[in-house]
Amino acid sequence: MIKLTKRQDEILEIVKRNGPITGKEIAEKLSVSRAALRPDLAILTMSGNLDARPRVGYFFNEKLGVKQQAERYIHQKVADFKAHPIVVEKSTSVYDAIVQLFLEDVGTLYAVDSEGHLAGVVSRKDLLRAAIGNRNLQELPVSVIMTRMPNIITIEPEATLFDAAKKMINYHVDSLPVVKEVDEQENTYLLVGRITKTTITRAYLEIMEEKSD
Amino acid sequence: MIKLTKRQDEILEIVKRNGPITGKEIAEKLSVSRAALRPDLAILTMSGNLDARPRVGYFFNEKLGVKQQAERYIHQKVADFKAHPIVVEKSTSVYDAIVQLFLEDVGTLYAVDSEGHLAGVVSRKDLLRAAIGNRNLQELPVSVIMTRMPNIITIEPEATLFDAAKKMINYHVDSLPVVKEVDEQENTYLLVGRITKTTITRAYLEIMEEKSD
Repeated sequence: MIKLTKRQDEILEIVKRNGPITGKEIAEKLSVSRAALRPDLAILTMSGNLDARPRVGYFFNEKLGVKQQAERYIHQKVADFKAHPIVVEKSTSVYDAIVQLFLEDVGTLYAVDSEGHLAGVVSRKDLLRAAIGNRNLQELPVSVIMTRMPNIITIEPEATLFDAAKKMINYHVDSLPVVKEVDEQENTYLLVGRITKTTITRAYLEIMEEKSD
Repeated sequence: MIKLTKRQDEILEIVKRNGPITGKEIAEKLSVSRAALRPDLAILTMSGNLDARPRVGYFFNEKLGVKQQAERYIHQKVADFKAHPIVVEKSTSVYDAIVQLFLEDVGTLYAVDSEGHLAGVVSRKDLLRAAIGNRNLQELPVSVIMTRMPNIITIEPEATLFDAAKKMINYHVDSLPVVKEVDEQENTYLLVGRITKTTITRAYLEIMEEKSD
């Protein structure tokens, strides 16, 4: 897929709204000479974005437009949509973790070891279970109640949002830590972000807003 | 938008895959006579689903197909996607509500009054806050800790999933009770379901799965 210039994008918009439209009319709308437009129109026609018909003018190629739009969504990468992960040391007390959860207003905390590698995931339910367990929450470290590696469902930055949504539905989790593998043998991962069902809900809105235009 | 018969859907599929294709070839694939197909082909052509060109055959009208698909998604109704709401009486103890939350494996409970009308929403965070508050959870009713009407963000069955997704993002909530208004003056609503970010994530997957075919 070729990257269009700003001028080429403007031409596409004009043809989308007014097509069929002649090269002369496009030139007038952009206040440039027809000769100046010729290379852009050639590129747009050769790339399949526009169709041209003699004595009629330029048409927008709807099929290619929709396909490109669909492909853009299907290729949206986790790396471009991930949010900042909220992290606690795995030795942090359950009480302090609960305070952190409220302060940051998130649903999940990630526990890391002293080297910053992902050690566990602490959900609201894990904290709630501990809180009604009549234990001393100020003494209990989150490492005792967290889900640990290798039982954590993770996603990599190069994966797509589509992959992430599938994992959350299939594994019944509300969020995924985004990780980079440091050492496969030792199951060590660097935590670089999080993807949640909120991320996916925003992506859904973006698609729908485009469709409802 | 007209509702197609099973036969007409089959014809559309054949033309999508094999078009341009003649009426004779379609009839052969379906093992019926060409005469028997004529009414279906007429309907599909008049409705704009198919284009026909003399001596070439039938084409699938890609533009209409994509438009119908987009419209289908944009019109998806809350009523058709809502899940069963998990309900507690507003006099239920916080302790019993927590047990219920774990048993049903949900993130939010809805509290109802003795007439079954929506009285409040109880989130994991509300329960967690109560649990670390050093109160007697077996004596504390959920009505003390819940978010009450009219501060609850609700959605109606006739609204679209798109509306629901927008509300969840704009109001920073993970789920919406689906309600029917009983009496506007008295703020009474019948609870008929719930929509969550999981609902939206599933809808996103459905769109993407179609696009990745």
